[in-house]
Amino acid sequence: MKDTQVSENLSKEDVTVLILTAKKRAGLTWEKIAEGIGMSPVWTHSAAVGMNAMPKDKAQALVDLLDLPAAAVDVLVESPTKIWSQAVPTDPCIYRFYEIVGVYGPTLKALIQEKFGDGIMSAIDFDMTVSRVENPKGDRVKVEMSGKYLGYNSW
Amino acid sequence: MKDTQVSENLSKEDVTVLILTAKKRAGLTWEKIAEGIGMSPVWTHSAAVGMNAMPKDKAQALVDLLDLPAAAVDVLVESPTKIWSQAVPTDPCIYRFYEIVGVYGPTLKALIQEKFGDGIMSAIDFDMTVSRVENPKGDRVKVEMSGKYLGYNSW
Amino acid sequence: MKDTQVSENLSKEDVTVLILTAKKRAGLTWEKIAEGIGMSPVWTHSAAVGMNAMPKDKAQALVDLLDLPAAAVDVLVESPTKIWSQAVPTDPCIYRFYEIVGVYGPTLKALIQEKFGDGIMSAIDFDMTVSRVENPKGDRVKVEMSGKYLGYNSW
Amino acid sequence: MKDTQVSENLSKEDVTVLILTAKKRAGLTWEKIAEGIGMSPVWTHSAAVGMNAMPKDKAQALVDLLDLPAAAVDVLVESPTKIWSQAVPTDPCIYRFYEIVGVYGPTLKALIQEKFGDGIMSAIDFDMTVSRVENPKGDRVKVEMSGKYLGYNSW
Amino acid sequence: MKDTQVSENLSKEDVTVLILTAKKRAGLTWEKIAEGIGMSPVWTHSAAVGMNAMPKDKAQALVDLLDLPAAAVDVLVESPTKIWSQAVPTDPCIYRFYEIVGVYGPTLKALIQEKFGDGIMSAIDFDMTVSRVENPKGDRVKVEMSGKYLGYNSW
Amino acid sequence: MKDTQVSENLSKEDVTVLILTAKKRAGLTWEKIAEGIGMSPVWTHSAAVGMNAMPKDKAQALVDLLDLPAAAVDVLVESPTKIWSQAVPTDPCIYRFYEIVGVYGPTLKALIQEKFGDGIMSAIDFDMTVSRVENPKGDRVKVEMSGKYLGYNSW
Amino acid sequence: MKDTQVSENLSKEDVTVLILTAKKRAGLTWEKIAEGIGMSPVWTHSAAVGMNAMPKDKAQALVDLLDLPAAAVDVLVESPTKIWSQAVPTDPCIYRFYEIVGVYGPTLKALIQEKFGDGIMSAIDFDMTVSRVENPKGDRVKVEMSGKYLGYNSW
Amino acid sequence: MKDTQVSENLSKEDVTVLILTAKKRAGLTWEKIAEGIGMSPVWTHSAAVGMNAMPKDKAQALVDLLDLPAAAVDVLVESPTKIWSQAVPTDPCIYRFYEIVGVYGPTLKALIQEKFGDGIMSAIDFDMTVSRVENPKGDRVKVEMSGKYLGYNSW
Amino acid sequence: MKDTQVSENLSKEDVTVLILTAKKRAGLTWEKIAEGIGMSPVWTHSAAVGMNAMPKDKAQALVDLLDLPAAAVDVLVESPTKIWSQAVPTDPCIYRFYEIVGVYGPTLKALIQEKFGDGIMSAIDFDMTVSRVENPKGDRVKVEMSGKYLGYNSW
Amino acid sequence: MKDTQVSENLSKEDVTVLILTAKKRAGLTWEKIAEGIGMSPVWTHSAAVGMNAMPKDKAQALVDLLDLPAAAVDVLVESPTKIWSQAVPTDPCIYRFYEIVGVYGPTLKALIQEKFGDGIMSAIDFDMTVSRVENPKGDRVKVEMSGKYLGYNSW
Repeated sequence: MKDTQVSENLSKEDVTVLILTAKKRAGLTWEKIAEGIGMSPVWTHSAAVGMNAMPKDKAQALVDLLDLPAAAVDVLVESPTKIWSQAVPTDPCIYRFYEIVGVYGPTLKALIQEKFGDGIMSAIDFDMTVSRVENPKGDRVKVEMSGKYLGYNSW
Repeated sequence: MKDTQVSENLSKEDVTVLILTAKKRAGLTWEKIAEGIGMSPVWTHSAAVGMNAMPKDKAQALVDLLDLPAAAVDVLVESPTKIWSQAVPTDPCIYRFYEIVGVYGPTLKALIQEKFGDGIMSAIDFDMTVSRVENPKGDRVKVEMSGKYLGYNSW
Repeated sequence: MKDTQVSENLSKEDVTVLILTAKKRAGLTWEKIAEGIGMSPVWTHSAAVGMNAMPKDKAQALVDLLDLPAAAVDVLVESPTKIWSQAVPTDPCIYRFYEIVGVYGPTLKALIQEKFGDGIMSAIDFDMTVSRVENPKGDRVKVEMSGKYLGYNSW
Repeated sequence: MKDTQVSENLSKEDVTVLILTAKKRAGLTWEKIAEGIGMSPVWTHSAAVGMNAMPKDKAQALVDLLDLPAAAVDVLVESPTKIWSQAVPTDPCIYRFYEIVGVYGPTLKALIQEKFGDGIMSAIDFDMTVSRVENPKGDRVKVEMSGKYLGYNSW
Repeated sequence: MKDTQVSENLSKEDVTVLILTAKKRAGLTWEKIAEGIGMSPVWTHSAAVGMNAMPKDKAQALVDLLDLPAAAVDVLVESPTKIWSQAVPTDPCIYRFYEIVGVYGPTLKALIQEKFGDGIMSAIDFDMTVSRVENPKGDRVKVEMSGKYLGYNSW
Repeated sequence: MKDTQVSENLSKEDVTVLILTAKKRAGLTWEKIAEGIGMSPVWTHSAAVGMNAMPKDKAQALVDLLDLPAAAVDVLVESPTKIWSQAVPTDPCIYRFYEIVGVYGPTLKALIQEKFGDGIMSAIDFDMTVSRVENPKGDRVKVEMSGKYLGYNSW
Repeated sequence: MKDTQVSENLSKEDVTVLILTAKKRAGLTWEKIAEGIGMSPVWTHSAAVGMNAMPKDKAQALVDLLDLPAAAVDVLVESPTKIWSQAVPTDPCIYRFYEIVGVYGPTLKALIQEKFGDGIMSAIDFDMTVSRVENPKGDRVKVEMSGKYLGYNSW
Repeated sequence: MKDTQVSENLSKEDVTVLILTAKKRAGLTWEKIAEGIGMSPVWTHSAAVGMNAMPKDKAQALVDLLDLPAAAVDVLVESPTKIWSQAVPTDPCIYRFYEIVGVYGPTLKALIQEKFGDGIMSAIDFDMTVSRVENPKGDRVKVEMSGKYLGYNSW
Repeated sequence: MKDTQVSENLSKEDVTVLILTAKKRAGLTWEKIAEGIGMSPVWTHSAAVGMNAMPKDKAQALVDLLDLPAAAVDVLVESPTKIWSQAVPTDPCIYRFYEIVGVYGPTLKALIQEKFGDGIMSAIDFDMTVSRVENPKGDRVKVEMSGKYLGYNSW
Repeated sequence: MKDTQVSENLSKEDVTVLILTAKKRAGLTWEKIAEGIGMSPVWTHSAAVGMNAMPKDKAQALVDLLDLPAAAVDVLVESPTKIWSQAVPTDPCIYRFYEIVGVYGPTLKALIQEKFGDGIMSAIDFDMTVSRVENPKGDRVKVEMSGKYLGYNSW
């Protein structure tokens, strides 16, 4: 029963509420919204919930598509401060990914080093997709991540 | 300077040390070892460091390939207790994946629900690959995860 | 002294308050409510307090049974983000179950492996009942859990 | 490569190692061991890994069955100090039970109160079984817990 | 400067505020209030601050004694969810009891086992008194706890 | 299988092991040992496990009674550094006391203030007894604590 | 922009705000306020921010001095529940004292024992002053603490 | 029963054990040792337990006084890495100082600012004494700290 | 949608909101604001977000520059209590600096000691700049910190 | 009194001990060692204590310079797993840098965004120097960090 009246001082959180409400009213999926602004669904959702900043034209496109107040453009463009309050996430859907990092973290590290040398996969110069793969034994979730390799410096 | 003499009571940790030592001596990569036992590099490394159990034939193949003591077969076959001691990993290479779960966790959840309904991606009926993608702006690490979709029950 | 007026933007938490208030006013038990919508008491309570999503027909049935505002249907149908804020629960009734996991966790793991192989009991494809068993030395609480066995993948 | 020679001062942990080694050598299951000493598999495993104390006759039966050193009887009979070091367990098989407590804890509390009044299910005057239930969609793990109801005192 | 107007939806916390305000206005002690409803001061305070549920007649007696709104009866009767937010309490008066558990916990365990066998003192079937003992070297606080012994089950 | 040979540098922990071994060999209870040195069982156990320091004569009496090495006297006399590693104890017997502090902490504080004024019960100038009280509905554990009242200073 | 209107139900926190506002308006220092009520600055500040209770006459003196609402007297007299939410304080000025306890804690313990025997310095029967000491190399903060020695009991 | 034989690679911890053993054998107090090397007892104890580094001449004096191995000089001179493992200390004697920081931290900050401006008391350019003050109501521990005032920079 | 009306009781947080709003409206950068008040950008931002106190003339200059309410001057001048709620920051931009402290902390310590002796770099008598360095392989962030060396005291 | 004999299985930790011992024996500074292998002191120390990997030629140069066992080359070349066990460092010298991140973290983020856009400073493609700056009011520590700017991706 949150108050959704629009004043000048919209926060990232306010804009997320406006987007979710508009999305529900319009009966749109993230896939459709992403298509509507010419970006991927993962990035679009992430920016919509305030975990990424939008380039101005994409922010304007989203505001147009969902008929959001004009003031939302500036908010979507701002660099967010990315905060998550649960060091260990409790939601089962998110926890499973945390578990994968716990179980396979040393493996990811070993194989990245074997293929590239001493370094990491960037989480900044990074993109990701989620897709559904049909399978007779039960459909599967496919997550593809791609990040630039960054090698450690010596100096 | 760990003592690597082989007695009857090998632990998972002991076998990991034996594998790492043999791998170094033989100058093998995880890719080569995985190929040698007919499995993927991710799974092979994970089982080698005690985060997954091996089927008996694969354990025997690994023991043969790396000339490990015969007693290692039984140990590789045992179900491991998967423990990680850092709730938030510090190694930068592993932390970046933790960060991805923190930043994109709600996005992964939203898109899985949009594509499948209320449920999760299994981390048990799960597989993963790591590969190197050439790119003129700097090569990229590609991580592909695939897990069975599990829908919540109502009863 | 929470304000329970109903606006368009009901949250999961708002709907829980509406359900608890209606339940109290109607003098119903969870058993009766569950019966009224043709589901089990455990699942019904869990969905009512926002820890599970309802199929549309069950959400409608609950709204009808308890005379909730129509907007509650959509909210009950939404996938919840499952959050608990106490890593170690303090309420004695809930803590005892946490204690059982602490004391008997390794035993549950060992017996599941003995009976099935290397894997887990799903907490997603899962159901549970709670019942009262008469006993001359003091009645007993009986909790029955059933979850699909999921074996680890090798690939 | 732990040293398993037997001295006078056996600890609970030492006896657990002796039991696990003897069980492996004898090729016995927990089901068989439990049967051999006339107790349930859950309780037998729990006492064997030092999370419960054995009555003297059962301790003697276990020592005879597995040909353990006589000094193990006294150790098995001692009341253990029950310690688990992970407030949130990481092993996926055990974590799923922790997750069930997180998701369904308030539900367990509500239904116990509805059926019994204000109180708890004892985790001391308590027993549990684990069984395999065949199911064409995939076999299921069944866990049955039973604990004495304890009502809160007023005074 | 909390608003204390009384609406239909009183929470446990609201009722606690009403009780504390009424107690102050009436100039009563917990001892007097407890006497007025025929219960002990420890239990009366605990139920008044929402850490125990009251039987209906005692709730009614308290409401009459302190001239609380009638709606408070139902709230006092409800089973509370017992939450404390500080795993280690900071208030010096409460911390000292935490310290006693830290220092003497193993001693309490050892002596309970020596006198009763393998088991615990119940914190549910439990009562407690606090009294003042005169002493020429400085008066002393006396705390007496009594809880039913519960022996561990074997099955 | 700890080594119990006695050298010059006994630690508090070493002496505890020596006492526990001697107690077991002699078949003594804490009650008997306490009686043998003319102190209470709670204090005696506490000092024996290194949570309190002994006056020299009592340390000598204990060494004589249990035939401990002479060097143990000095160790028993030393002021211990009191450390407990679990902020929230897991052992069920000790946890119940932690739970009592969580549930009844504010009550203990309120009643001490009502009876004495603004202050605390000392955990230093403190004593405690544990006893068994027969009861037809099941015997009860009685714990009596007594600590000097200390009032806050104003200056 | 907190609302500072004065109603009947003043909390400790409300009174602190009233004091800080009045102090600012009157241009007083803590030293002057302390002098005005005939107490020390440390204790006066501590009671003003709700970390100590005031005797009635001192509370009245403070209310008169700062022209606070009459209802503040009762609030200042109440025993506070002392809560700090940061186990490790972040403010650099307070952290330095935490650091001193970390670095010199074992030293304080060793010297108190050397001078007094096995015991502690009371933090209840306690007083403290803060002063400025001129020094050509830079003035120094001087903190003097004095607490009653309390020796451990044996019984 | 730690081995105290002296090899080339003495650690800070080894030297602490050597000092404590020598102090005990010689029957010296910290006061006497401090006097013997011409420093204060607080600093001497702190350096002896590895929480401060000694100037070479003082290290040599200590080695001579206690007849320590010559190699200890270099170790005493090394800058220590100051580590404490308990964020909240459990030992009652040390906890009381932690409690003082929790209760009086904001007061110390307020008074330092009143007397000096915006800044802190240094914990590096710092000294401390502990003394015993006779008092008919019970002797008191006096702790005096002095640290250089450091004002915040603006630039 | 925060209310930005200006009353008498401005908090540090309120003034930060006023500054950020005014900065946005005026289209100023931190660099420009810093220049406008004759201070550095790092210090200016830090004081603007309530992590440092301003000298009165600088506070007045900022109020004039951004046309803030006059009452903001006093607030900007007050010494802040510096609080951060995430022991490990989650925002990737800030986390990277935390990571640098984790990875290079022992190195910073070793080199400070090698160049100065046993001591630290002050974080109080401290200044910092951030600049952009052009680089054909990608521009670089340059952070320069300068803090007064403080040597440990012996006494 | 760690054993420094050299076997085949040197760990990173073993090599660090060998380096520190050799450095002490040779009376070298980090500055000199860095110069000897043609690298910077910060990077050299970091690699020597196992927080960075060395290129083969630099590892060989270090082994030659300090007369380390040949097997150390391979160990120095291996990619380390970077672990720090204290989420909040306690050593005062390292803590000050943690404090700087806490106090100035949001400032670093704001200025990086102002100068570059939405992104971070890399901690991987990163270098750092530490130097001593003479100053009549007391010499200063200067720390210069430089890391590649990485902009967030949109896709």
